[in-house]
Amino acid sequence: MNPDRYRNLRRDTELKYINVHPIQRGGVLTPEARKALIEFADGYSVCDFCFEGRVDLVETPPVRDFVGDVAEFLGMDEVRFTPGCRHAKWAVMSTMLEKGDSIVLDSLAHYTSYMAAEANNLEVYEVPHSGYPEFRINPETYADVFEEVKRETGEYPKLALLTHVDYRYGNLTPPEEVGKICEEYGVMFMVNTAYSSGLMEINGKKMRADFIVGSGHKSWASTAPIGFVATNYEHVEKLMKTSTIRGRWSGRGFTKKEIAFYGCSPVFGAPLITFMASFPSVVERVSRWEDEVRKARYFVREMEKIVGFHQMGVRPTEHTLQNFESLPFHQVARKHKRRGYFLYSELKKRGVIGVHPGLTKNFKINTYGLTDRQINHVIWAFKDIAEKYGLEVED
Amino acid sequence: MNPDRYRNLRRDTELKYINVHPIQRGGVLTPEARKALIEFADGYSVCDFCFEGRVDLVETPPVRDFVGDVAEFLGMDEVRFTPGCRHAKWAVMSTMLEKGDSIVLDSLAHYTSYMAAEANNLEVYEVPHSGYPEFRINPETYADVFEEVKRETGEYPKLALLTHVDYRYGNLTPPEEVGKICEEYGVMFMVNTAYSSGLMEINGKKMRADFIVGSGHKSWASTAPIGFVATNYEHVEKLMKTSTIRGRWSGRGFTKKEIAFYGCSPVFGAPLITFMASFPSVVERVSRWEDEVRKARYFVREMEKIVGFHQMGVRPTEHTLQNFESLPFHQVARKHKRRGYFLYSELKKRGVIGVHPGLTKNFKINTYGLTDRQINHVIWAFKDIAEKYGLEVED
Repeated sequence: MNPDRYRNLRRDTELKYINVHPIQRGGVLTPEARKALIEFADGYSVCDFCFEGRVDLVETPPVRDFVGDVAEFLGMDEVRFTPGCRHAKWAVMSTMLEKGDSIVLDSLAHYTSYMAAEANNLEVYEVPHSGYPEFRINPETYADVFEEVKRETGEYPKLALLTHVDYRYGNLTPPEEVGKICEEYGVMFMVNTAYSSGLMEINGKKMRADFIVGSGHKSWASTAPIGFVATNYEHVEKLMKTSTIRGRWSGRGFTKKEIAFYGCSPVFGAPLITFMASFPSVVERVSRWEDEVRKARYFVREMEKIVGFHQMGVRPTEHTLQNFESLPFHQVARKHKRRGYFLYSELKKRGVIGVHPGLTKNFKINTYGLTDRQINHVIWAFKDIAEKYGLEVED
Repeated sequence: MNPDRYRNLRRDTELKYINVHPIQRGGVLTPEARKALIEFADGYSVCDFCFEGRVDLVETPPVRDFVGDVAEFLGMDEVRFTPGCRHAKWAVMSTMLEKGDSIVLDSLAHYTSYMAAEANNLEVYEVPHSGYPEFRINPETYADVFEEVKRETGEYPKLALLTHVDYRYGNLTPPEEVGKICEEYGVMFMVNTAYSSGLMEINGKKMRADFIVGSGHKSWASTAPIGFVATNYEHVEKLMKTSTIRGRWSGRGFTKKEIAFYGCSPVFGAPLITFMASFPSVVERVSRWEDEVRKARYFVREMEKIVGFHQMGVRPTEHTLQNFESLPFHQVARKHKRRGYFLYSELKKRGVIGVHPGLTKNFKINTYGLTDRQINHVIWAFKDIAEKYGLEVED
């Protein structure tokens, strides 16, 4: 055992480099969150004045108000906070479904969507995508898969999940269209907004969503782990089912505690505080989303001037997360003594990190929140590397 | 919606007051953790250099080493981090047991122990305590309850849970004795160390524990939410069972991801970093536990000089968390215009917070980590209030 190695833990990525890691851009704290984080650094910091035994009911700091405000912001009725979107998905599936029930999800879904189903012993059916190069999810295909489930199991699925923006290509699939189909079929509808809410406007009512789940550290400028599940009055009782267990000997009971949220809450402390403290900025920033998309499209245009570079997924891009096919870099890697790692090293030398080390055939980049100057620097870095290795770069 | 109320969130409890809240003392950050928290404030901060898709395998920062060091420190073989002890208990019960299985727990167990069982549809049997005023758990009673389960269900329980130190009286029950009984009966043994590990030395092997669970924000000087489950090689495969789900259409699989830990981990970011950064101090501080107990006993002696005050639970106290019966204050409250809230207000005026507002008949206080001077200040505050209301205070 060598405890000394945990002294002086440093993370200089955000100071020394431009970090284009796909999961990092939307979670950079606001100055307000950074300040609140220091205030609420210790242990159970939000629990000093918890008088009702549930974090969502705490009034100092104003968590109770915050629950209402986040629900309103999402166009939903009620919210609970979770340590990440993954617990939110697990909570919905564990309370609303029974073992053996079928669910339908898009084939670009985050792996934790599949695993939430696995943990709850559900049958998973996938909505196919259109394949290379767009990998598009057609909302109408949900109806086809509902019919497939009916043919195979005798009934329609209980729940459909749509990944609003997927983590592989940054494709945006319109939830309204899927929501309409779900409503027609009487299938509950969950929208995973891990890469959208907190960045762009979300209205659960318009989406006809039964559940909106999302991630604070991915897209609401928060310290991990923090996520949420929002729902409508219709489902509150079941999703937020309270404890009925009684001690056989003691008679102890915990009737105010919510089972799927581990009692008072599965998350509290600093992550929740940063989520609250960033909220005023998040409410503002969603109105600037179009500008982020504009910058992302400019970024794609410039990157594609490296001959052989292609943005994968739906075009023009509708999100700041891009997946580039970059076969010319793959050719370089085959002859380079550092193989695929050459790209990571060359980028790092130029002040850019976040591209997965070893990858050259294709890779992902997120430009959310970068300034024009930073974006131009990233473009320059790629073009400069391309030119160094004799690749063609258009003017 | 009023986002402005989340601007300038403040927590002055630790600066202006001595906070004796039972859940707060062991979670106060070390200076090292406070520094690391600022470094790793943003979103998925520990995931910059995640190359294997699991947080426990990350080498920068050294999470992979940390997993091994924490296991060694606890005298166990393997560890996973969770957002709080509650998820750790849920994970054990969801992977090691089947719906309808029986478990035995002490009747002083934390409510989240009951609820982890409820969430997993288990039958819960309680080990009785001795009642007022000691509320003692006799380790030998576990054997009696095992026999009771056998009589009622036809087989011994699958799992026994012991709350090493309980949250109601701060009673410490020796795990070694319960572990021995579990070994004899072939019952798996889980020790909840939420109020002990990180404060005092823990050796899972000596306890004959199959699972040690604990809480970083409760007793390892960490930002919430962070907890852990430690186990032995014997149970690794089952507890850390990896995903086998396959996309029907896509063929997608996630074979390295662990089901009960939501894939890569149910917790990451700043809480994990504070847990790591405080670890060198935690390793040191557990050797000073006896001194904390000495101070706690002094505190009890002085508090009991207020005539009618009695420390509940096992005597002399073996922990820094105390439950006091304080009937004289209850008498005062009956005639006071602020009723039970008088005590909270009087203490706050004297710079002490953390006693549950409204309680006067009995209340809990934790002195862990307070200096002699701070402890004497708290004693003074109580005696001063007692004298103000004409109660008898011995010299």
